[in-house]
Amino acid sequence: MRRIRLIVAYDGVRYHGWQIQENAITIEGELTRALRELLREDVEVIGASRTDSGVHALGNVAVFDTDARIPPEKIAIALNHHLPEDIRVQRSEEVEADFHPRHCNSIKTYEYTICATKMAVPVLRNYAYHVYHELNVEKMRDAARKLEGIHDFSAFCSAGSPVENKVRRIIAADVSEEPIEWGNGGRLVRIRVSGNGFLYNMVRIIAGTLIEIGMGRQSLESVERALETGSRQAAGPTAPPQGLMLLGIDFQNGI
Amino acid sequence: MRRIRLIVAYDGVRYHGWQIQENAITIEGELTRALRELLREDVEVIGASRTDSGVHALGNVAVFDTDARIPPEKIAIALNHHLPEDIRVQRSEEVEADFHPRHCNSIKTYEYTICATKMAVPVLRNYAYHVYHELNVEKMRDAARKLEGIHDFSAFCSAGSPVENKVRRIIAADVSEEPIEWGNGGRLVRIRVSGNGFLYNMVRIIAGTLIEIGMGRQSLESVERALETGSRQAAGPTAPPQGLMLLGIDFQNGI
Repeated sequence: MRRIRLIVAYDGVRYHGWQIQENAITIEGELTRALRELLREDVEVIGASRTDSGVHALGNVAVFDTDARIPPEKIAIALNHHLPEDIRVQRSEEVEADFHPRHCNSIKTYEYTICATKMAVPVLRNYAYHVYHELNVEKMRDAARKLEGIHDFSAFCSAGSPVENKVRRIIAADVSEEPIEWGNGGRLVRIRVSGNGFLYNMVRIIAGTLIEIGMGRQSLESVERALETGSRQAAGPTAPPQGLMLLGIDFQNGI
Repeated sequence: MRRIRLIVAYDGVRYHGWQIQENAITIEGELTRALRELLREDVEVIGASRTDSGVHALGNVAVFDTDARIPPEKIAIALNHHLPEDIRVQRSEEVEADFHPRHCNSIKTYEYTICATKMAVPVLRNYAYHVYHELNVEKMRDAARKLEGIHDFSAFCSAGSPVENKVRRIIAADVSEEPIEWGNGGRLVRIRVSGNGFLYNMVRIIAGTLIEIGMGRQSLESVERALETGSRQAAGPTAPPQGLMLLGIDFQNGI
């Protein structure tokens, strides 16, 4: 029996998120089906990040155990023949038998993309959140920096999460921008956050909070207040899923 | 009667190109329907660039004549309510009654995007051409530069084009690259071409030729040979449509 790790990229538009469900199409469901077709074994998949409906990934991670003789690094290409074109395994490799993608130290990096233009840009509609307002990117960056470090992120977690300990460490949080020179002009604004674990909807609530600050509807201090009070009301709304992308997970430098 | 110019952005995936057709969904067809619904007039649309099936735009241009009293600059927002979300008018404005978007001097700028990665990247599948090979971007850039200037582009025009004069001027042709740090790594390679007019499939044949050169299948000299002989066989294949985007059209600085 060998444990195989997959790096998985997908376009989340068509899917009801990562986690397998009875009556809905999911990434984990498609991966499981494809693995069973390829290996003719009753494979069970364990994913690192159970991304929401509509959220994308360049490098989510999953593992499974197999007795099949196929060389581990060949599984990626073979598996892609059994997957729809909006899911592509980027790499496959053997890992230690006790490697678990959730019960181990790792750093996850997410990016949230905002299209700040007067009119929506059709090619970005599934990959960015369109905001009509001008955004003060410098203020957003200052607010992002305040999230760095070890904090209780209760204010940045959707109600109903069963997790008790809401202390997490954000290694880096930054905001960058790029001009859109064509059409009617505007900017792409990207929020990038790396950390050792994220609560339910945490990155989308961070994005919603930074957008409020960028629009001038909330002050920089609202971030400090949210961290101190742990009150969900002190943070901003949950930004929509299509702007979110899981870039990758680093298991080597986990903390 | 006033002539109104529209800047139109669209995602070409769902469409059989720009030009209106009886039994197929097209950008021009949707625009015409939306304008007739909004203005309750028998509007005819004239487009600047009749992009192919699957090709995208940030700033294509169209004009139409109307007797409606709606302020010209308000048409964009009103029209978007009648359009599907993969077409968005970016701006509307009144122009001279004799302004014709094809029979006038203008500079069009196109971008062709290549995703040079070992495995396809799902979120880019409709917006870039996936090439497994490593590409020599410097050679591609040198080849692009050779296209600049006034040339007979017969070798870069699909057979069956009714156009007789195939001399065009390319103002600028350049190739840029950006690393993809996540998933399995790789690069995004972008070919940007500006000119005073383009033949049928010209940018896609330029892209196909530069990709052959980047892969080492063709030499730099093949571009010179293609320009000199005018032989379609001397240039590369027509690269697929999804990598192509019409960025915009400049009527002010036309030549």
